[in-house]
Amino acid sequence: MSDRTAMPARAGEIQLARDLAALAADAGIVFIGHVETPWKVRRECPRNGRQSREICRVVLKPDYLEGLKSVETCSHLILLYWMHEARRDLVVQAPSFASRTHGCFALRSPVRPNPVSLSVVERLDMTGDGFLARGLDCLDGTPLVDIKPYFATTDSIPGAEVGWDKA
Amino acid sequence: MSDRTAMPARAGEIQLARDLAALAADAGIVFIGHVETPWKVRRECPRNGRQSREICRVVLKPDYLEGLKSVETCSHLILLYWMHEARRDLVVQAPSFASRTHGCFALRSPVRPNPVSLSVVERLDMTGDGFLARGLDCLDGTPLVDIKPYFATTDSIPGAEVGWDKA
Repeated sequence: MSDRTAMPARAGEIQLARDLAALAADAGIVFIGHVETPWKVRRECPRNGRQSREICRVVLKPDYLEGLKSVETCSHLILLYWMHEARRDLVVQAPSFASRTHGCFALRSPVRPNPVSLSVVERLDMTGDGFLARGLDCLDGTPLVDIKPYFATTDSIPGAEVGWDKA
Repeated sequence: MSDRTAMPARAGEIQLARDLAALAADAGIVFIGHVETPWKVRRECPRNGRQSREICRVVLKPDYLEGLKSVETCSHLILLYWMHEARRDLVVQAPSFASRTHGCFALRSPVRPNPVSLSVVERLDMTGDGFLARGLDCLDGTPLVDIKPYFATTDSIPGAEVGWDKA
């Protein structure tokens, strides 16, 4: 068990018997860059990116810069990033903002078997090494996994509901 | 170089000098389950999930089933899955449907440094080992990486535009 999983779970939480970070991986992620944000410690991060108007900087490693061709035509992007400080063993969690426990797959918590987080961001100016973006919520220095164009036709569902988040 | 990267690139495409699948990974993914779809070979897959009304089956490994608690209250989910047949080395691509080349980060192509694909799906019935879903576009047996609740407040941007996809 790593230090990350040694913390006790809150009442009602369910912990996996194994430390996923120590298991042999089924597939390997390479970090393509990182994100520069104003938040240096976890308690400073906004609960989600839409709560923040801060402008963040998305920086790619030189090998991947050509992959940004045509990104300047996209108003919004989906960013995937690796929550490198998150434990991976809590399948049922008791978030401080919720009145009862929920499974990790019903939460956007960074704590999940594969700590890949996702934000829909507004793309601002392109820079020499990436671009500026609004709508992020992660720690400064968070490693970047992927960037995808946001298509309203497939990705926007204004009527979607998360029942546990109401009432 | 693996077989996956040995294929020549199309005119205008730009290939990475290194085979990412052979590099030491920065982080490890564990597969939490898989997706059962009607499509057995790549050419059968719909170009995107919204073009399909087929009902697919999302199956979790037993260790992760408790993570589905409260997912039954979510009308829509974001699925992340691993495109295990995709090459990872083309940073600029010439898709057959496009009139010019685009960077991998302006495309939803499975070909990208980290072949994690994303679909927004409609959640249908819960099953003993997962749930049914509509809106997928991937091969039968595709490994599953993550499931997230879709929040209209943060994830839905009806006015988002992908400029290169017009005209």
